[in-house]
Amino acid sequence: MIYLDNSATTKPFPEVIDSFVTVATDYFANPSSLHELGMKAERLLAQAREQIAAMLRVKANEVVFTSGGTEANNFAMKGVAWQYRRRGRHIITTEIEHPSVAEPCRQLEELGFEVTYLPVDRDGRVSVEQVERALRDDTILVSIMHVNNEVGTVQPIEEIGALLARYPKTLFHVDRVQGIGKVPLDLKQAGVDLCTLSAHKFHGLRGAGVLYVREGVRLMPLIAGGGQEMRLRSGTENVAAIVAMAKALRLAMEKYEREIGRLKALKEEWLAALSAIPEIEINTPRHGAAPHIINFSLKRGMKPEVFVHELAKSRIYVSTTSACSSKKKAPSQTLLAMGLGEGRAERGIRISLSFDNTNEEIAPAVAAMKQAIKTLSEVTGSHGDEV
Amino acid sequence: MIYLDNSATTKPFPEVIDSFVTVATDYFANPSSLHELGMKAERLLAQAREQIAAMLRVKANEVVFTSGGTEANNFAMKGVAWQYRRRGRHIITTEIEHPSVAEPCRQLEELGFEVTYLPVDRDGRVSVEQVERALRDDTILVSIMHVNNEVGTVQPIEEIGALLARYPKTLFHVDRVQGIGKVPLDLKQAGVDLCTLSAHKFHGLRGAGVLYVREGVRLMPLIAGGGQEMRLRSGTENVAAIVAMAKALRLAMEKYEREIGRLKALKEEWLAALSAIPEIEINTPRHGAAPHIINFSLKRGMKPEVFVHELAKSRIYVSTTSACSSKKKAPSQTLLAMGLGEGRAERGIRISLSFDNTNEEIAPAVAAMKQAIKTLSEVTGSHGDEV
Repeated sequence: MIYLDNSATTKPFPEVIDSFVTVATDYFANPSSLHELGMKAERLLAQAREQIAAMLRVKANEVVFTSGGTEANNFAMKGVAWQYRRRGRHIITTEIEHPSVAEPCRQLEELGFEVTYLPVDRDGRVSVEQVERALRDDTILVSIMHVNNEVGTVQPIEEIGALLARYPKTLFHVDRVQGIGKVPLDLKQAGVDLCTLSAHKFHGLRGAGVLYVREGVRLMPLIAGGGQEMRLRSGTENVAAIVAMAKALRLAMEKYEREIGRLKALKEEWLAALSAIPEIEINTPRHGAAPHIINFSLKRGMKPEVFVHELAKSRIYVSTTSACSSKKKAPSQTLLAMGLGEGRAERGIRISLSFDNTNEEIAPAVAAMKQAIKTLSEVTGSHGDEV
Repeated sequence: MIYLDNSATTKPFPEVIDSFVTVATDYFANPSSLHELGMKAERLLAQAREQIAAMLRVKANEVVFTSGGTEANNFAMKGVAWQYRRRGRHIITTEIEHPSVAEPCRQLEELGFEVTYLPVDRDGRVSVEQVERALRDDTILVSIMHVNNEVGTVQPIEEIGALLARYPKTLFHVDRVQGIGKVPLDLKQAGVDLCTLSAHKFHGLRGAGVLYVREGVRLMPLIAGGGQEMRLRSGTENVAAIVAMAKALRLAMEKYEREIGRLKALKEEWLAALSAIPEIEINTPRHGAAPHIINFSLKRGMKPEVFVHELAKSRIYVSTTSACSSKKKAPSQTLLAMGLGEGRAERGIRISLSFDNTNEEIAPAVAAMKQAIKTLSEVTGSHGDEV
């Protein structure tokens, strides 16, 4: 198997599953229970929070556990909107956010908020000047992703954070789901107020994510109840998945330290191999992109979903745009926003790497891609299929 | 270990953990991914949905997976409120709901909705007449729990459902977290529109719950994004925890079929043993209560948290009120609403059983309780500690 869909989800590290099983079996009690069993679970939870905080270089009480990245993004957007609704009702974001930011924006528009969607340049990037021009007196939130999930473009988070430091009434949320463990970002230095992570994107398990909430930032809870997570996110804590997430993050950061050079070189090798295929156009920008995502479009007439299924026959797994959008068959919003045109935006393919991938995979995968393209060309030729 | 805190959380069945590990390891792909690996994960998810739907006697497309009971309760309350806000802004609930219903009510009040909190009788029960009197033209939602988590009182859900069948513009939500697998309830016959379940209360794992959403009921998503779960709950599906939940529910329902008589008898034995202790007053009603929860109050001057810790020394685990409220040291809202008085409401202890408990536990546990009461009495006597 050659798994090239790591931006959709990663294979959990075996050690991470082991941790989960140990905690779920031996420390199953409710951390809110007063008795010793509950206290043991609570200690594990506190430990995981401290470990994750240390790795993110933030305070433990700034780490709020959620059920995942989508919840964390919804919580950030709606939590700020409802908490600060009397201060203002204007939000700034981009045209290329993940649906878990874009959809809450649309919901908030329906409920009386106003959202400015910043366009991006040919590389899929917004500029700090655009953000500055869009700021208003009533802007309560700017939400900009760190690394785009479809093409890998890195946004100028540090610069935008420096700008927003001059606007203390405007909070800054960063969806860092694709960036963590791949592209460094110091949350404190960058002036980020809210930041989203998702465990299953760094070889942790589904069911755990983080919303970093800078001390002093208030949010109306999205999921209210028993008052867990510093009263910000209620519900019995998924201690096993959270402990497993702390371990996954540590392992992922260690791999980053040791192997980021190899990953960057691997991406370059991939780019070179893909660029040599005439039926492929690379969409990922040459500079300022993450080391693990490559997006390209197939030539006119080639259906990306057929390409995906052809490759799967050789147990090679790639993706059409993002997993969350793959079944809609609509053109990629990110590629459209980059001005690549509807046809190219409809024929996007994403390969996304992890530190588990090796350069030995490139030759067989590229050979299979060429074969798939040949098959698609024949189909196109004989059936006159086109766009 | 004698674990008597099953309403806080249950120990996961070993087979459930095995299922989780198999799915997380071998079917880790994102169900939204187009390729074969994603399709395999999607099939497992669809299968789990069908299994759970069959066990609940509802349709598969009425089963919406959430991260747990607290999310499902928040989703039901807020999803109805925002979706139907133009129809009306009045909600009816009770004074004894779980915080994951009560807190969203308070949030919605802050945001312009109006909530009627029905009082309960000495048994902790509301009547269908009370609901009827509270109904208004602008009532969009009635939310009443099936089994109270603190004292075990069963609410007249079927009667209330029959009443509300005459009010098609008023939706009926039932928090069934404590009822499932212990007290039967046919959702369709009872006219329930929305119903909450939580996997970790029936020996499943944290991170999975269900909101039953009757076909035709619309909800504004609480967690929006990629459009998973029939566009009602976005986020990469926690397939491993969901498959594990389906297995846990099957095992729990099988245990119910085989052993509900034994559980009922076990509760009676417990009640008899506890009633014989003069320093204890039983709060759980004699009739119309679930077979697994017994709530009692200690005598004046005895601190329930000390009682819990004393028992834990003998590895016997009980709870003060609910886990979600146990650290607040406030009097139990449920016991207060039942009119038991502040002192008694501050000294509540809950034991909650599962099918794993046996009657051999009663003698040692009751002996330990008597010893703990003796210790507490001495402390009270010597230090003049009182309330």
